[in-house]
Amino acid sequence: MNISYSDYGVTYPKGFFAASYAAGLKPDRLDMALIYSEVPAVCALVTTSNKVKAAPVLWDRAITADGSLKRAAVINVGSANACTGEQGLENARTTAARAAQALSLQEKDVIVSSTGVIGVQLEMEKMLPAVDAMAANLSRTEKAGKDVAHAILTTDTVIKTASAEFEIAGKTVRIGAMAKGSGMIRPNMATMLSYACTDCAVTQPVLQQALSKIAEDTYNMISVDGDMSTNDTAVVLANGMAENPVIDSLDSAEGQVFYQALFEVEKRLANAIVRDGEGATRFIEVRVSGARTDQDARALARSVVESSLVKAAVFGRDANWGRVLCALGYAEADFDPERVQLVFSSPAGEMTLFKEGRPVAFDEAQALEILSADAVAIDVLMNLGASQATAWGCDLSYEYVTINAEYRS
Amino acid sequence: MNISYSDYGVTYPKGFFAASYAAGLKPDRLDMALIYSEVPAVCALVTTSNKVKAAPVLWDRAITADGSLKRAAVINVGSANACTGEQGLENARTTAARAAQALSLQEKDVIVSSTGVIGVQLEMEKMLPAVDAMAANLSRTEKAGKDVAHAILTTDTVIKTASAEFEIAGKTVRIGAMAKGSGMIRPNMATMLSYACTDCAVTQPVLQQALSKIAEDTYNMISVDGDMSTNDTAVVLANGMAENPVIDSLDSAEGQVFYQALFEVEKRLANAIVRDGEGATRFIEVRVSGARTDQDARALARSVVESSLVKAAVFGRDANWGRVLCALGYAEADFDPERVQLVFSSPAGEMTLFKEGRPVAFDEAQALEILSADAVAIDVLMNLGASQATAWGCDLSYEYVTINAEYRS
Repeated sequence: MNISYSDYGVTYPKGFFAASYAAGLKPDRLDMALIYSEVPAVCALVTTSNKVKAAPVLWDRAITADGSLKRAAVINVGSANACTGEQGLENARTTAARAAQALSLQEKDVIVSSTGVIGVQLEMEKMLPAVDAMAANLSRTEKAGKDVAHAILTTDTVIKTASAEFEIAGKTVRIGAMAKGSGMIRPNMATMLSYACTDCAVTQPVLQQALSKIAEDTYNMISVDGDMSTNDTAVVLANGMAENPVIDSLDSAEGQVFYQALFEVEKRLANAIVRDGEGATRFIEVRVSGARTDQDARALARSVVESSLVKAAVFGRDANWGRVLCALGYAEADFDPERVQLVFSSPAGEMTLFKEGRPVAFDEAQALEILSADAVAIDVLMNLGASQATAWGCDLSYEYVTINAEYRS
Repeated sequence: MNISYSDYGVTYPKGFFAASYAAGLKPDRLDMALIYSEVPAVCALVTTSNKVKAAPVLWDRAITADGSLKRAAVINVGSANACTGEQGLENARTTAARAAQALSLQEKDVIVSSTGVIGVQLEMEKMLPAVDAMAANLSRTEKAGKDVAHAILTTDTVIKTASAEFEIAGKTVRIGAMAKGSGMIRPNMATMLSYACTDCAVTQPVLQQALSKIAEDTYNMISVDGDMSTNDTAVVLANGMAENPVIDSLDSAEGQVFYQALFEVEKRLANAIVRDGEGATRFIEVRVSGARTDQDARALARSVVESSLVKAAVFGRDANWGRVLCALGYAEADFDPERVQLVFSSPAGEMTLFKEGRPVAFDEAQALEILSADAVAIDVLMNLGASQATAWGCDLSYEYVTINAEYRS
């Protein structure tokens, strides 16, 4: 498959416009974003499984339940619009309605996302004029795409964009995407948001099938602190302007190319979120192979990457295979400790630390060198079956505690 | 029920002896312990559910599977005897055999426990002479009970003992117990060990039923870092020397008194483990009530107490009800966010922060005062049913990261 990747944002594919605005929800920065497709787009949505769902999540689930086409998305930071009751739902709807009015759409054409403090109402008097201003200022430039990627950040330290370009039946197809981080935000919030726009022609059920599957293997396999937000949302909008033959199956050659490109874009965003995790100093990739089932593989990889003790060990550059084995042991998955092999690696080298139920003698100096790299991989070979999974996380540092322990004042 | 509690150790009940020894497994400290009952005792055992089980855990499970009587227990620190293969199992058996020889017992009469580094063989040449020396030095004094409580500590900073005394049918019955902490130990280990000795006359099935139920509500409801060890073990030995009528049901009045006393003793040890958690500065009690099922109540309480973000917020004295709600939301339990009420309290006062799906305005200064106490309680009222559960944890501090990130050297 000939797919080229870059870090263009949501304005990369045909027909997608963006605008951002400093509405005063946060001091001295862009804090609102608008995405607009010039033609109706099929929409796929994956949202938080947290039982406490924010108002915008409820709005988005309601308007996408029938698989209908969408045209725009409005995103704000500052307030998460979660635990805000009827007023919160009404504010989500009013935001969508204002964008619809300004863009000559219907309110059900407009996705909304919020991220920020829980339990605080949206500042509608600032947001509604900002929606109008953004609608009047839509742009297809690369800068407009980067600016919206800036506008949605919270405790993130860098913007996260990714893009792909490939051909289907002689037509150039593009995906442009952005995300913001999952690290918990002082004082009150955790949110992962991702928006991918594509000019690919694809049916809604196939797009939803692709996103649901991809989210399982990307956003659901990253861990910054193990907590899950009330607002987590991943959206894909596909407007068909590439004019490729409509993809109506992921099993077709075209479907596979599209899936691969979207997977890689979402994976890059997911990894960028982890690398930018609160207080993270080191990136951890846990690759489980030879598990009995896909579910086991995922559970094992997640258990290792979510272990506070493994995270703290990586921060301390400690080749602590015992903690990895421990974390495997309490995962809800079937395995035989006597068959497990553990290999730590990084650009500085690789070493086997555990094999056939027994520790393998290793050189501490070499281990320190391997673990001093910015990115460390832990390969876990179960030797039981053919299933595999990868999870990504970051280490646990002093800085994480600092960020999350500060007073809310 | 008239039960008096104190902090006597395992030598409190009739017929139980203890000895400890500095075998050189750790520099300059007691590092081995022996407990002995002068008559055969019924034994109940709960061990780790981690799929990676240490050799002593496998030994103990094997010799207790038939419900047979036990006479002694040998405990060492330094090596966990986990991931040590056939040699490890043989060393566990040899340790039991040496104690049996020295005390004129059979090897299957002797429980063994180990805590320390994973993947390192026991130093048998130091341990076996130490077993002989302890067998020759058994004592029923309170000091002997405190000394064994010292001998089993690892990163713990204080000894943990608890005891109870009560009457059954005119006979004085005693329970004396000790434990060591669950916080992960540099470089490689996590282990919770608890030993309770009682002179109560009780059948083995009833004792096992009591311990299994109590462990669910005590040791399984505490969280220091969410990790679960390969060596976790809780043991109760009951030798019947109080000469009370044998308890053969927990539903009888006598059974209920015994259960209550054992529950409180184990709960005190579990709480002491949390209070002594690595780097802990503040104790957290999460009380869930009004849940639909007991299982839901436990899952909700544990989810809150295990959330890194809740733990960091308590460290920072931040009345962050949003994180509590978030953690409830991703617990595997059924509830309605609109009915939840959250109350934070401590000896300094109490305040409701969330009610009927909405935040309640509160005074930040008062919140800071409440959260500055050494122990903080979070009451979670689900308003759905009649089930309740309590979980205990500690905050997440810089010190935790320091302890767990240090190089293994």
